[in-house]
Amino acid sequence: MNIADLDTPSVVVDLDVLERNVRHMAERAGETGVRLRPHAKTHKIPEVARLQLAAGARGISLAKTGEAEVFAAAGFDDVFLAYPVVGAEKARRLLALSDRVRLAVGTDGVEGASSLGGVFHPAGRRLDVLLKVDCGYHRVGVSPESAVEVARRIADLPGISVRGVFTHAGHAYLATTREEVDAIARQEGEILAATAQVLRGAGLPVEEVSVGSTPTARGAMAVEGVTECRPGNYVYHDASQVSLGTCGIGDCAMTVLATVVSVPATDRAVLDCGSKTLSSDALRPRPSGHGWILGRKSRIDKLTEEHGVVRVEAGESFRVGEKVRILPNHACVVSNLHDRIVVARGDRVEGEWAVAARGKVR
Amino acid sequence: MNIADLDTPSVVVDLDVLERNVRHMAERAGETGVRLRPHAKTHKIPEVARLQLAAGARGISLAKTGEAEVFAAAGFDDVFLAYPVVGAEKARRLLALSDRVRLAVGTDGVEGASSLGGVFHPAGRRLDVLLKVDCGYHRVGVSPESAVEVARRIADLPGISVRGVFTHAGHAYLATTREEVDAIARQEGEILAATAQVLRGAGLPVEEVSVGSTPTARGAMAVEGVTECRPGNYVYHDASQVSLGTCGIGDCAMTVLATVVSVPATDRAVLDCGSKTLSSDALRPRPSGHGWILGRKSRIDKLTEEHGVVRVEAGESFRVGEKVRILPNHACVVSNLHDRIVVARGDRVEGEWAVAARGKVR
Repeated sequence: MNIADLDTPSVVVDLDVLERNVRHMAERAGETGVRLRPHAKTHKIPEVARLQLAAGARGISLAKTGEAEVFAAAGFDDVFLAYPVVGAEKARRLLALSDRVRLAVGTDGVEGASSLGGVFHPAGRRLDVLLKVDCGYHRVGVSPESAVEVARRIADLPGISVRGVFTHAGHAYLATTREEVDAIARQEGEILAATAQVLRGAGLPVEEVSVGSTPTARGAMAVEGVTECRPGNYVYHDASQVSLGTCGIGDCAMTVLATVVSVPATDRAVLDCGSKTLSSDALRPRPSGHGWILGRKSRIDKLTEEHGVVRVEAGESFRVGEKVRILPNHACVVSNLHDRIVVARGDRVEGEWAVAARGKVR
Repeated sequence: MNIADLDTPSVVVDLDVLERNVRHMAERAGETGVRLRPHAKTHKIPEVARLQLAAGARGISLAKTGEAEVFAAAGFDDVFLAYPVVGAEKARRLLALSDRVRLAVGTDGVEGASSLGGVFHPAGRRLDVLLKVDCGYHRVGVSPESAVEVARRIADLPGISVRGVFTHAGHAYLATTREEVDAIARQEGEILAATAQVLRGAGLPVEEVSVGSTPTARGAMAVEGVTECRPGNYVYHDASQVSLGTCGIGDCAMTVLATVVSVPATDRAVLDCGSKTLSSDALRPRPSGHGWILGRKSRIDKLTEEHGVVRVEAGESFRVGEKVRILPNHACVVSNLHDRIVVARGDRVEGEWAVAARGKVR
């Protein structure tokens, strides 16, 4: 079957591009001697994670306990939940997971870690945690200055072992030049490696020094002392990665096939893909529409739940029934909206993959 | 079970509020003699649509063919797809649906309607369509001035019958005062009723004159000549409806229960609900954060996939492990992110409902 014959909207992933992206990131990690632990939240698909492991990744990262349950059931045996998991309900599920998976979770405070240790300790078990360090994103994480004190208190908790430190330079997604992204990447690696050294100096064990995001992976992996990298988006890339200078359009594996369902005015066309297909996530680093139409200058200007409203540029036209391909702003959240994706090579459809961990937010 | 004992994040719908919202809208329709055909895209749950029918609704509205298939399988027998459905693939599915459902679909042009008639006519069948008229939203729809010409050409198509006209005043969501919303509602009804009269004068059949949105329903139903109304969001309401003056916070049936997972600074707390739980949809009519925390002044200021970052107002504090309830910006897209919702009465959990038509975007 040809892609053009698919019903719409359909999320299509080009396997040639996907495999190349997987290989390139593995090569970059190999060159620096850093272990790759890709964040599987981007795709949520065991088939994709298997390609990543086959290319040399050591394990996978995920955010939610429910995602880890899906991947554990699919046979993955080394999972890091890069998220400050909190509470006894989730601790009980993590205890069950730790029977069959080499497991670690993130933490950035004593209360959260204690709520997990309080379940592992009575069961005669210990849970590995990595301390989240804030390298400038200011979302979660302890400041580098307070890392020793917090790490020491966490290491003293019954049922908890500190395996290392981790960080995420999400602020790179707001950098407006490639140089700025690279500077943030160096800081990310340097701040975390330096924090790890301070912790070791204070007698705390730090096996893992884990950085990572798709735009900063290359720069952060090059820093001495970094042991692990957790990029996610690179398997697919998207319009935001192109805007950030991380890749070119030809490196984007995910597109959305859509149909023009209305041309109510010469300067307006409407596609059958809205926020329930593309998400409402803005283009980064600077918001500008809701998706690029491949081969056209016209962009999706407004998005409602099932309508993508295109502002038609002068000299272009769209006709009702025509199919177009959209490069979405943010591939990770597109995956999360769809139960299945179509896989293809070029124009040839090869099959479908279930987005097995879609919607597992708990 | 008490709501406070649920794992998080969980989407919770209060049945007392839901039932009251369903009853109030049915009473408003009853007072004006207008038939109610609620848009089930808000909830996508057969159990909710059954409450709407039991309160007097005549049938349901949906957007996508896949949603209609789910509701037809659940026994619903009168469906209007308020969407410009286009193409032979979907026409074949509509033909199968029309065996067991009183079906109509929207159209705003000859090409789209022709692509459906081209499947119905050879099968010896006719598909009812309603012509979408643009009452000022400028998304899809023909202008009132061109309605006669387009309706005549559609009525001449083999396999197609024109059942009526419909519109949607989505621009009401950008109105900044209740008076402005009410003026748009009156225009919505008046433009559509006048267009229907012009079509009838030209010899075209117009059985249905269908308006509707939650903020404009009351005003548009009051207009002479309107026969049907299709509000959707009113079953749940949300922070945007409160901001628009459609309802009070006590009229909102849907909340999201979340846990504080990090308090990295005195002015920042992080919840375990991000865009994969709350969606990235902005508050309307004016963007302002990503959800209200019930009982607090502090708002969710930033949202990433699994993190809701709260800017903590002076005098307030959050502690790790604490559970809070969020009033989301846009209830419809929250439904679409979750496989199941929890139903409760006050603090008492009554069970769970599957969001049966979630993700049916084709």
